[in-house]
Amino acid sequence: MSRAPKLRLYSYWRSSASYRVRIALELKGLAFDYLPVHLVKNAGEQHQSAYRAVNPQGRVPALEVDGHVVTQSPAILEYLEEAYPQPPLLPGDAFGRARVRSLAMIIVCDIQPLQNIAVTQYLKKPLGLGEAAVGAWLHEWIGRGLTAVEARLARDRETGRFCHGDTPTHADACLVPQCYAAGRVGLDLTAWPAIARINAECRELEAFRRAAPEAQPDAEQ
Amino acid sequence: MSRAPKLRLYSYWRSSASYRVRIALELKGLAFDYLPVHLVKNAGEQHQSAYRAVNPQGRVPALEVDGHVVTQSPAILEYLEEAYPQPPLLPGDAFGRARVRSLAMIIVCDIQPLQNIAVTQYLKKPLGLGEAAVGAWLHEWIGRGLTAVEARLARDRETGRFCHGDTPTHADACLVPQCYAAGRVGLDLTAWPAIARINAECRELEAFRRAAPEAQPDAEQ
Repeated sequence: MSRAPKLRLYSYWRSSASYRVRIALELKGLAFDYLPVHLVKNAGEQHQSAYRAVNPQGRVPALEVDGHVVTQSPAILEYLEEAYPQPPLLPGDAFGRARVRSLAMIIVCDIQPLQNIAVTQYLKKPLGLGEAAVGAWLHEWIGRGLTAVEARLARDRETGRFCHGDTPTHADACLVPQCYAAGRVGLDLTAWPAIARINAECRELEAFRRAAPEAQPDAEQ
Repeated sequence: MSRAPKLRLYSYWRSSASYRVRIALELKGLAFDYLPVHLVKNAGEQHQSAYRAVNPQGRVPALEVDGHVVTQSPAILEYLEEAYPQPPLLPGDAFGRARVRSLAMIIVCDIQPLQNIAVTQYLKKPLGLGEAAVGAWLHEWIGRGLTAVEARLARDRETGRFCHGDTPTHADACLVPQCYAAGRVGLDLTAWPAIARINAECRELEAFRRAAPEAQPDAEQ
C-alpha cells in the first residue's frame, strides 16, 4: 500500500469557502495540516506574495496535495470525492448527484460571491455605502438564496435528515457555512425552517463540530 | 438499446450560464429542444409561474431530462459528463479535472454572479447607481476574474490549444460565454492574451458556433 498523500489546507477560520472544505475533510476522516491565511490582517495575507505563490488568485481555500495545489472550494470538494470516495458525500445516482450539486451551487454561486469580503470592501469604497446599506445588500442576497434552497428542500421528497437523504452531502457542507454567515449578519434562520432543522442536525455531528470556525487554530474571540 | 432520453433546455440567448450548457450539449452532439425564457420581457419570464413550476429559483438554464429537471449550470455540466461521457469535457486524471473545474469556477463563482442581471438591477435600484458606476462595477469584477484565469493559463504547462490541453473542456465552455459577456460591456480581451487566443480557437469550432447567442432561435438584433 502506498503512503497516504500529505494534505495541507490553506484556510481562514471564518471563510465559508474554507469551512466547506474542512467539513468534507472531517467527514472523510482525513488528517491535514492547517495553514492559516488571515484575510483582514496585514491588508489581507491572501494578497501577499507568499500566498500568491500558492494561489495566484489570492483567495482561500487552497488544498495542497503532495505539491499539487487545488483551488476553488467546489473543485476541491469534487477532488476529495474522487480521491477519497469513502464515505461518499454525493449520492449514488446521477439525478441525485445533480440535485446535491444544484443545491450546493445555489449557495456557492448565487449567495457566497455576493457576501465575499472583496465585494463588501468595494461596496464601502469606492461605492461609499454605509453600514446599513451594506447590511441590506447582504440580507438581500443571502435571503434570496436561502429562500431558493428552502423551496427545494421543502418540495423535494429526496430531502431527509440532511439535504439529500440521511447522510451528509456536499449540499450540507455548503449549507452549514452559509447558515453561519447568515448568523454573522443577523439573519434569523426561523424564516427557513427546513434549513434551520438541517443546520441543527449537521451541527450535532462531530465532523461538523471539528470543522466549525470557532474550533480552528486561528479562531479569534 | 434503450431509447435516448429527451432533452429540453430552458435558455435565454444572451445568458452566459445558458450558453455554457449549450456548448457542452453541442460538443457532445446531443439533440435537444430549445425552450426560450426571456429574462427582460414581461418583467422577466423567469419569474412567471409557468417557469417557476420548472425551476422554483426562477433562473436559467434548466435542463429537463425525461421529466427530471436539473438546474444550475455547473451541476448540468457535471450531469451531462456522467450521462454522456463521450467526448469527455473533463481530463482523465484527477488533478487535471481539478484544474479544469478550478478554472471554470473562477468564472462561475467569482465573475458571473457579480454581472448577473439580478445584481445589476439591484445596483440601479435601490442603490441608485448610474450607468457609469454600473459599468465600472462590471469592469472591476470581470477584469479581476479574467486576470486570475489569465495568470493560471499563462503559468501552467497544462494549457494547450484550449484551457487544458488540445481538446475543449468545461473551462472553455465557461470561458467563451464570459468573453462574450466581457465584450458586451466594452472590455477588450487584448489585456488577456492567453484568454483571447483560446476564445478565438474555440469560436472556430462548429459546436461553439452552434451554441453562440446569435445562433439561437430567440436571438434579437
